[in-house]
Amino acid sequence: MNKIAFQGTHYAFSEIAARKYFGDNIETHPCRQFTDVFKSVENKNSHYGIIPVENSTTGSVYQNLDLMLDSSVTVVGEVQLRIEQHLIANPDVKLEDITVVYSHPQALQQCGNFLASFPDIETIASYDTAGSVTHIRNEKMLHAAAIASRQAAEDNKMQILKEEIEDNPQNYTRFHIIASTTQMPEGANKTSIIFSMKNIPGALFKSLSVFALRDIDLLKIESRPMRGKRWKYLFYLDFAGTMNEERCQNAIRHLEEITSFLKVIGSYKAAED
Amino acid sequence: MNKIAFQGTHYAFSEIAARKYFGDNIETHPCRQFTDVFKSVENKNSHYGIIPVENSTTGSVYQNLDLMLDSSVTVVGEVQLRIEQHLIANPDVKLEDITVVYSHPQALQQCGNFLASFPDIETIASYDTAGSVTHIRNEKMLHAAAIASRQAAEDNKMQILKEEIEDNPQNYTRFHIIASTTQMPEGANKTSIIFSMKNIPGALFKSLSVFALRDIDLLKIESRPMRGKRWKYLFYLDFAGTMNEERCQNAIRHLEEITSFLKVIGSYKAAED
Repeated sequence: MNKIAFQGTHYAFSEIAARKYFGDNIETHPCRQFTDVFKSVENKNSHYGIIPVENSTTGSVYQNLDLMLDSSVTVVGEVQLRIEQHLIANPDVKLEDITVVYSHPQALQQCGNFLASFPDIETIASYDTAGSVTHIRNEKMLHAAAIASRQAAEDNKMQILKEEIEDNPQNYTRFHIIASTTQMPEGANKTSIIFSMKNIPGALFKSLSVFALRDIDLLKIESRPMRGKRWKYLFYLDFAGTMNEERCQNAIRHLEEITSFLKVIGSYKAAED
Repeated sequence: MNKIAFQGTHYAFSEIAARKYFGDNIETHPCRQFTDVFKSVENKNSHYGIIPVENSTTGSVYQNLDLMLDSSVTVVGEVQLRIEQHLIANPDVKLEDITVVYSHPQALQQCGNFLASFPDIETIASYDTAGSVTHIRNEKMLHAAAIASRQAAEDNKMQILKEEIEDNPQNYTRFHIIASTTQMPEGANKTSIIFSMKNIPGALFKSLSVFALRDIDLLKIESRPMRGKRWKYLFYLDFAGTMNEERCQNAIRHLEEITSFLKVIGSYKAAED
């Protein structure tokens, strides 16, 4: 049975996404931090890891982009999940009793409009959504709520005070499946790379031209600051195609002429609905 | 005397940056949220606003990129500041007494390595760095610390428990000066735009080519998810040149052929050290 590492406690969205991707016949391994998920895969304590990489409301999960840079893991799959956030409290607690809301910072951000309509409610960042439900239950907190999934509320026998409080119902998260060895899964159609450019004029345009000249579609580009180098950037780029295709191999070889750093983090099958 | 709106309380980094840009002969207007800074400028309650847009360790301040999209304000200037973060507590408190650390989420992130070495210390996100110092002082908290500037510690007569705890000494923040009317300041050499692309093949490559074809240097490109549109993006792009130059006007006219949305948010003088 495959063992899958994820960040958070049981019923976290990452665990729900893992079941969507692998099915129910898996063992899940909760980790406190994203870095622990990477370590669990690198050390072969888990067969795979699952990490959120982008949310359609709040954007990329930069911490995982940054971790991917230094890690030896590769991306072997992708899955997306609609994220419904609910305001959850102990039984009999009322909305007007709430003075503090606990959740993961990304969840707090996804519900920014809802929370802004209660300016007196304090928000406290916690390690994960489902864990914040367990926390307010275990501490029997009567003035606190948590933001998490329906499954987290039901499993903890807690009350949903308000349903679907995310700002935008088109609230989806993309997750990457990571493994310790490079794999080329069946149906692979997408590749992710990280690169930084040489300091030459028009470098960004030239890097994108290696794909355009070979009719390779760019799916996404994202920039991140390089640590310790002021206003220098790493680029995270997804393109349509795999490293088994000659035109993609040629594009990457061409790109190496322009870049000072280049890492292919994996070819995999793009998430479907 | 110019009145400058900023987010946070007195001695916040934004206020320090405002004095670096305008000098000391200004009146500063503290606002609770970034959106209040925008409103204060839009409603002409302040002459200018100052907003952080990017940190060299943690990346863009996405909330302000998002607010800029909907606002009528324009960018008229830029300033950068080295950000030194200090761990601040009430007098006589010792490092080993600390169980909780308050600060702005960006500051907590900039000190991620330091905080990770104290896994038992809880972190609580607050509205601003300097305000978290006032908070632990006013509440006489003996097991709490705040992360903020030296000025915030000194002004509140608080103790610096540990100096320069930011992960990276190359920790700089860029701030934009915003105004309610378009201005073309003396020495302007940089322009910021926001656009989204038509759904055509190679759209991103074509949008960058309008600059490359005219030898206009790209300084930065950043993507953000479009609200309510799953996996569609807005691009935030900075280029070298101003809207007074014919080649830049031509590039923007060319770009309009390819984009479904385009907004020039201002030409201004790039920050110097």
